[in-house]
Amino acid sequence: MLNYSHTIPTKLYFGKGQIAKLAEILRPFGRKVLLAYGGGSIKKTGLYDQVMDILSDEGFTVVECGGIEPNPRIESVERGVKLCKEHGIDVILAVGGGSTIDCAKAIAAGVYYEGDDLWQMVAGRHGILKALPLVDILTLSATGSEYDGGGVISNMKINQKLGNSYTFPAASICDPTYTFTVSKYQTAAGTADIISHTCEEYFSRTPDSDLADGICETIFRTAIKNLPIALAEPDNYSARANLMSISSIACSGIPSYGKQSSGWPCHAMEHELSAYYDITHGVGLAILTPRWMRHILKKDPGCAWRFVRFAKNVWGLDGEDETELALAGIDKLEAFFRESGIPMTLSELGIGTEHFEAMAAHANLGGRLSRSFVPLTDADIVEIFEACLD
Amino acid sequence: MLNYSHTIPTKLYFGKGQIAKLAEILRPFGRKVLLAYGGGSIKKTGLYDQVMDILSDEGFTVVECGGIEPNPRIESVERGVKLCKEHGIDVILAVGGGSTIDCAKAIAAGVYYEGDDLWQMVAGRHGILKALPLVDILTLSATGSEYDGGGVISNMKINQKLGNSYTFPAASICDPTYTFTVSKYQTAAGTADIISHTCEEYFSRTPDSDLADGICETIFRTAIKNLPIALAEPDNYSARANLMSISSIACSGIPSYGKQSSGWPCHAMEHELSAYYDITHGVGLAILTPRWMRHILKKDPGCAWRFVRFAKNVWGLDGEDETELALAGIDKLEAFFRESGIPMTLSELGIGTEHFEAMAAHANLGGRLSRSFVPLTDADIVEIFEACLD
Repeated sequence: MLNYSHTIPTKLYFGKGQIAKLAEILRPFGRKVLLAYGGGSIKKTGLYDQVMDILSDEGFTVVECGGIEPNPRIESVERGVKLCKEHGIDVILAVGGGSTIDCAKAIAAGVYYEGDDLWQMVAGRHGILKALPLVDILTLSATGSEYDGGGVISNMKINQKLGNSYTFPAASICDPTYTFTVSKYQTAAGTADIISHTCEEYFSRTPDSDLADGICETIFRTAIKNLPIALAEPDNYSARANLMSISSIACSGIPSYGKQSSGWPCHAMEHELSAYYDITHGVGLAILTPRWMRHILKKDPGCAWRFVRFAKNVWGLDGEDETELALAGIDKLEAFFRESGIPMTLSELGIGTEHFEAMAAHANLGGRLSRSFVPLTDADIVEIFEACLD
Repeated sequence: MLNYSHTIPTKLYFGKGQIAKLAEILRPFGRKVLLAYGGGSIKKTGLYDQVMDILSDEGFTVVECGGIEPNPRIESVERGVKLCKEHGIDVILAVGGGSTIDCAKAIAAGVYYEGDDLWQMVAGRHGILKALPLVDILTLSATGSEYDGGGVISNMKINQKLGNSYTFPAASICDPTYTFTVSKYQTAAGTADIISHTCEEYFSRTPDSDLADGICETIFRTAIKNLPIALAEPDNYSARANLMSISSIACSGIPSYGKQSSGWPCHAMEHELSAYYDITHGVGLAILTPRWMRHILKKDPGCAWRFVRFAKNVWGLDGEDETELALAGIDKLEAFFRESGIPMTLSELGIGTEHFEAMAAHANLGGRLSRSFVPLTDADIVEIFEACLD
């Protein structure tokens, strides 16, 4: 086991009706609220009206920052920062999924950023920054942004999608009923995101971090059990609640306690897909993950023990031949994603080979994936992208 | 799944050598440190000297509050509060196990307590209190006090041992090497404490909290795997590190996410044993837990599903007959404690029946154990105590 340090200052309010605490949560931070949200699904579901009513009844002043994109863009960050400065905002309330919360984090930090170009903040090397307080109401179980300090922002002009650390939410309201209306497609993609985060933490060289490995396996099994239920019965509270609870823990840092970092290779590769093609993050991850697994297993059979453990403890498989067992676990994962309705090839998304070399080079900038679970070269990454075509 | 809210402001610094960060952790709080510790084992191991050297080199002023008892007493709390007030202490540094940290928490809150009688604070109904900042260096994997807000204080004059909420540590330094010198007896008792905390969270009526249940099972399995290694090889870093990492998570609240509270019946009963006989907390819990299990399984066979799950997922047992399987899991747990060297009967500790009725009445004060996993009457509790005799 390796050393670690860990803290999450965020307070989670989990369960139906927790929005009743919204005013009480916001009040210590001030009266002027920037309401950040996405493409308007919260207007269809009535959550927008509910939030506005509470804020109005409780005497808050609201400035709206709607229209935040999936794969949120630097322009939205710039717009939000401008609004905060113009209106002297006290606290940001993000209502939505990971994209909205990520963007709100970058806005919260951007208010205090001293440079002229906010993209420099996104692209810079820094830890948690000074930021406005941020509260969120989660509407999608996926990224775990409600319980970590990170955010991912895209700059489509230069085809870059970069993750960084900004600020932790002060509080996250996680009400599973808000995910009842999430489409099958987004429900499956969100769960793939949760599974991928957990893969990035599980597939590590450290063999003896029993707590972290057991928590990863619990997250996998919880996702595998509850996603099909949520797809069949979108308003099954128990299934939605289980998916929401693992969303937060998957990104909490606890599943990687004491483990050597994998380098998060699938996320590095997926960010290239989204930066070039603006695809759904979880879909890109679902397509990449089994191909990455097969590639590294072939490249370094010495890592098979991890895959054998995955096959046994996650999928309940057994068998004598280590390689066969390892591959069977990967097949199970791919079939699970496919049966969940996720398009499992890049061809289905209309993506061809044209940018693979540039994407591989950028994913591996500074040779960072040469330090991943199984080291990857640019050529490896191109091969993984190619394996995703069909 | 039930609603929950959750936050832990404590920062964990886990791993060997993390004491290098001690001065940096303390500095923001001030210069005057109350050093709280126990019976002097930290003097034998050299940790006391190491801490004093750091504090002296870095310009801190130290006031000592040593001699804190296992099952820490109200008199130690009173003494610590007096020292803090006399010397204008800025921050408390607790070096030790759960008893020392618990006592330090009560001291930290006691400094701001406005009444004359600190026992009234211990016995009162309150949440987290205003308190001096507290930092700890953990030397025993057991109570989880390094990662929660609670503490348990005893008043031997009136045979009472009461848990309450005081304050979270601002930071906990958890270096597994400090547990290399912990005796086999205390190592086993500490692990029994971890297992018992997890039982109190696992044995709940809520059937569908998959994350929490999976984390409980991971904690059980990690304890079962690593305790025998730590007993055989006291300086096995990996085993000691695994036990220390589950100590903190077991009491973090995460293993009970979304679950109906069990009412912590074994802790309520054990506090009576310690209050009357000053026995080691983890030993009392190890003796009580399997007897409590058998009693409630007999009283309410409708709870057998939980024990079947425990037998299968924790002990890897299987079988057709539910009751047999449930009992086999309990037998496994009892045998595990016995093989770890824990005296598994009250008779071995010289405890007889003389106070059972008074202890049962106090454990069940206000009928609180009538709301536990399987409701307990005073008569049930007496029967459980009696089953512990041999």
